This record gives sequence, C-alpha cells and structure tokens, in this order.
Amino acid sequence: MYETFMKRAIELAKKGLGRVNPNPPVGAVVVKDGRIIAEGFHPYFGGPHAERMAIESARKKGEDLRGATLIVTLEPCDHHGKTPPCTDLIIESGIKTVVIGTRDPNPVSGNGVEKFRNHGIEVIEGVLEEEVKKLCEFFITYVTKKRPFVALKYASTLDGKIADHRGDSKWITDKLRFKVHEMRNIYSAVLVGAGTVLKDDPQLTCRLKEGRNPVRVILDRKGVLSGKVFRVFEENARVIVFTESEEAEYPPHVEKALSDCSVESILRNLYERDIDSVLVEGGSKVFSEFLDHADVVFGFYSTKIFGKGLDVFSGYLSDVSVPPKFKVVNVEFSDSEFLVEMRTCSRE
Amino acid sequence: MYETFMKRAIELAKKGLGRVNPNPPVGAVVVKDGRIIAEGFHPYFGGPHAERMAIESARKKGEDLRGATLIVTLEPCDHHGKTPPCTDLIIESGIKTVVIGTRDPNPVSGNGVEKFRNHGIEVIEGVLEEEVKKLCEFFITYVTKKRPFVALKYASTLDGKIADHRGDSKWITDKLRFKVHEMRNIYSAVLVGAGTVLKDDPQLTCRLKEGRNPVRVILDRKGVLSGKVFRVFEENARVIVFTESEEAEYPPHVEKALSDCSVESILRNLYERDIDSVLVEGGSKVFSEFLDHADVVFGFYSTKIFGKGLDVFSGYLSDVSVPPKFKVVNVEFSDSEFLVEMRTCSRE
Repeated sequence: MYETFMKRAIELAKKGLGRVNPNPPVGAVVVKDGRIIAEGFHPYFGGPHAERMAIESARKKGEDLRGATLIVTLEPCDHHGKTPPCTDLIIESGIKTVVIGTRDPNPVSGNGVEKFRNHGIEVIEGVLEEEVKKLCEFFITYVTKKRPFVALKYASTLDGKIADHRGDSKWITDKLRFKVHEMRNIYSAVLVGAGTVLKDDPQLTCRLKEGRNPVRVILDRKGVLSGKVFRVFEENARVIVFTESEEAEYPPHVEKALSDCSVESILRNLYERDIDSVLVEGGSKVFSEFLDHADVVFGFYSTKIFGKGLDVFSGYLSDVSVPPKFKVVNVEFSDSEFLVEMRTCSRE
Repeated sequence: MYETFMKRAIELAKKGLGRVNPNPPVGAVVVKDGRIIAEGFHPYFGGPHAERMAIESARKKGEDLRGATLIVTLEPCDHHGKTPPCTDLIIESGIKTVVIGTRDPNPVSGNGVEKFRNHGIEVIEGVLEEEVKKLCEFFITYVTKKRPFVALKYASTLDGKIADHRGDSKWITDKLRFKVHEMRNIYSAVLVGAGTVLKDDPQLTCRLKEGRNPVRVILDRKGVLSGKVFRVFEENARVIVFTESEEAEYPPHVEKALSDCSVESILRNLYERDIDSVLVEGGSKVFSEFLDHADVVFGFYSTKIFGKGLDVFSGYLSDVSVPPKFKVVNVEFSDSEFLVEMRTCSRE
C-alpha cells in the first residue's frame, strides 16, 4: 500500500543525484489521512536531510504531524554529522509510522529502526527495496566495499571497433550522446587514459543545461602528459592524475597522485578522496584493465561496421569457455544506434 | 475501422510462412454485420488461396455472402495459375466490399482491384499496409527485384568476435538460439561458406517441433569440400553448392552450381531456382561479402568478451566517415544475451 508514496520519495531523491555525493540521494514524504502533506529531499552535500526538509515543510504549512506516516527511501540517521540526528526530530514530531525502502548500510549512521521501535513508532521496511538500492548504489558500494562504484562506458561499431583503420573515432555514436552527459552529471568522477587525452584532447565536461562537471581522473602511468597543455587540465573541474612518474609535472590546479597505477590502488585512492563513483570512458587499454572491476557497463553501439580498426577491449583476453560476466538489464535504440546496459552477474 | 479484421487476416497469413514460398503468405476474413463469418489462409505452395478457403468455408456453414465484406492482406489474383482466379469467385459470391492491405506487385497476377471496381464492388486499399508489406517482404523483393530477400545472422561477443583466440566459437549465444530455428523455419534457404562447414560441420536444420528444413546453400568457391562427407550434405534437405571448380564432386543428392561465385551471380541463380529468401549464417568472410546486399541483419550478441579472436566482418573495410547503413528496428534481450534487428536505411 506504500508503493505509490515510495515511488514519489524515489523521484524526489533523484533531484539530489550527482549533488549529494558521497552521501546517498534520499527522498521523503509525510502522509496523513491518505494524502501527502509534505515532501523533502537531500539537495546537496552538507544540506538538510530529506526527513528534516519534509517535517519542516509540514510545520511551516501548519500541519499537525501527530499520527502521520513518514515514507523515506533510506533508514533515517541516528547520529550527529553535519546535521543533528533525524531520528530525534521524527520522534519529537509525533509521527507514528516510518516506512523505509532499505536500511542504511553505513554503521556510522546508527540504528534508526531500532530507536524508532524503542519509542513505540511502527517501522515498515523493504518497500520497493530493489529500486531504492539501485538509487543508492554508489553510496552502498562506497560504504560496504570501500571503493567507488565503477561504470564503464564505450562507443563502438557493431563489430566492436572504437576507431577505424586510420585511427579515427569521432562521432561513432551521435543520437544517444546526450546520455553520456546525463551520466557525467551524476557520476562523481570520469576516468580516461593518457592515450585518449593525447589523441582526442577531450573536455570530459557535462554539457547539460545546469549540469555539473565530474572530477576528471587521468591515468598517465608513464607521465607522457607532463609539461603539456590539454583541455582536461582546465580549471572548470577538479583534476586528479595518477602516475608512476616522480618527475611528471602538471598545472598547479591538478592533483598529482603518485601510485603503482593498478586498478586496485586507483580505486582505493579515489575512495580515500571521498569519490563514490567513477565512469571509465576509455580508451581500449583502460577498458581492458577496468572491465573485471566494473559494476555496470554501458555499451553505446552504432550500426556502422569498420571491419578493421581498434578493438574496444584490445588488451583483454578470454575465451568461449568463460561464462558471461554481465547480464543485460536494459536496451534502448534510436535510429542507427543502440545502448546496452549490463550489470555484473555477481561479484565481491 | 477495418484494422482489427486486417490484424486477424495477418495472423492467419502467418500460418503459411515458410510453407507457401515463393508465393506470398495471405490471410482473409469474411465479415458480415460486423462479425467474422469465415476465415482462410494460403496454407502451402500449390494449395488453395486464402480468399477461396474463406469463401468455401462460409458456404459450407450455409452463410449468405451477399453484401458481405472480404478483408484480405494482398490484392486477390486475377489469373489462372495453379488455381483459378480468385477475382471471379469473389464477384460471383455476392461480396460487396473488398478491403486489401497492399496491391500485388506481381504483374502476372493481373489487376484484381480494377476488375472489382468494374463489377461494382467497392475496394478499400492500404489498410495496415506497412505491416502487410513486411509480412510479404520475401515475395515483394523476389518479384520486384528479381532476387531473394537477404538476411544476415551472426552470433558475436560484445566486442564483435565470432570465435575466440583459439578459433572456438560453439555456444557464443545460447538463450536466444531458438530464434535461429524460427528463422530457419521461415527462410527458404540458408547459406554458409565452406570454411564454416569444415570448421563446425553444422546441420543447418530447423529443430523446431513440426519445423521444416530450409534449402542449404553452400559457397565452396575452391571446391575444398569435394569428395568429403559433411552433415550439410545429408538428404534431409535440398542442397545447392556454388563452386568455381569444375572438378569438385559432391554426393548425388547435392545440386552443383558452377558459378563465378559473386554475390550477384549467387542471388540471380537462387532467384531462378524460385528461392525467395536466404538467411546468410556465416562465416566471417561470407558475412563481409553479403553485408552490402543484406535487407535485414540479425545480430545475436552475448555479453562475453574475447579481447582477441576472429572478427565478425574480418573481410570488410569501412571508416568513420561512412554513414551507418542500418537502422535499428527492434532489440530483445534475455539474461546475458541480446538480439538486434537492423534494416537497410534504403537501397535498390
């Protein structure tokens, strides 16, 4: 019976996507006598929590919260962080029932559910839990696996080429390109190898109206970008360069991270920098290195066929006896292009 | 207002798919006072036409056809072929209105629409025309272009490989394999190169219950299959081998076609053998040769990734400046596989 309200709470939560990281996006609605009397969401990192926004909005409108029901995507926090605990606010408000999508996996947040029950508030758990978990997947991965959520995004021809026999790769896909900008607006960081920077000099910015640029992470193992000027080094976003080269020099704005440049080291380092999600955008070697670490893969395909050219996973090697690692969860198409979304079948 | 009845006629027509070739599948319903009083379809090559079956069925049930409406997918024939003209039967029956999906593009069939109008029968044309044209696409291509309708079907990894680095290719896709057997049940012929026969020794049969085997067409340019035993040479289907080799010898059951083995020659020859449709199933070189001649391409993809291996279009060469030739018209997915159906954007 709470699904409709939870759907609304999820919708509200999405307004914070890409703005609240590494916090989870959270949405909440207060319901009384079967109708929504107030709504809230976590708008940006450090901003008010969804529950607080909803309760304060109800109070401003002079609504009586006694006996009301709070529907919130994530278990309310019970600790003093940037804001006081939501649990206390809810208990004081007179709300009688709290409905949650999923429990907060972060042990730091305390046990809101238990506290509510100890105060005689009914708690209903697991409403649209799968949907809510997907909404919070960056946060859940970040907190439970102590690494960012990893997405891999490539644009390929039907025959798996990301550049033609002359090395050209611009405009393999076009119609679905806005999707890439939607992703850059939500992922905390994007990552490319030095080869892609040298070849394409990409901006890696989000060109959506009111979009925000992700952190740019560059993998420059040998320091080949040292002392040179590229658009990814511009100051319109935070920039982190991973390199093995002690000598490599980058513009002052750039954070240089000396590292063995293994995928594990990079992910650990990004985690320590509070980066909860990273979209790997290329090129072929970087895709091959990150493939076995990806939580989700977005394959953008054009119906173009090159026959010869650069393979999307040229540095990878597997064979027919190895079972598929990814499950297809969605496919969209437009004109001469399609986008396949795949998720790992299961991994640690 | 006739769409619902035309939909039913299309459904009936589909019962003849793969059985009536090179005739078109045709379905018909007779409607009186808003209800269907009889149905018919063309069941097999040489069998009764859909209109005849429907009218005879109505008569058997003692229905009065005067003033009735006939809804039929394709313009009724006005010529003596294996059966007498349907036009005469319809005119005599007292039917007052004939609704058709599309005109018969075959000049041999005569002009049914004109004849009806000359006899005071109202004709309504173009109901669900696109759908009906798709239903009859083998026939329309065969009659208007004097070649079979060409489909290309491959099974590839995400990175466009049809065999791994050791040459293994069995079971790249599995979940969607039944679709291949559905295709073999409908296409008049399947075509593979000698390399595929040598490597996989495939049966190329339809393993559906009550399915029928397509004609097997083998492209053995150099005669490398000569004097050897393969499953494609078994007598459970008609077999045609195209070869440049005068010396090549095949089992008695096999039809040997001496030819320059160009795609144009092969398609012309198949047309002359009354084959209205061919499903090209491999391998990589044959795909590359037939790609620019394909009306439709079925790409079966597994989410497996080989990194290295045999490219699906290894003999093809194009580049990023060439616009895509195919439009995506449908995508299905199941577990770790997806099927992309593509049609040529436009071709002669």
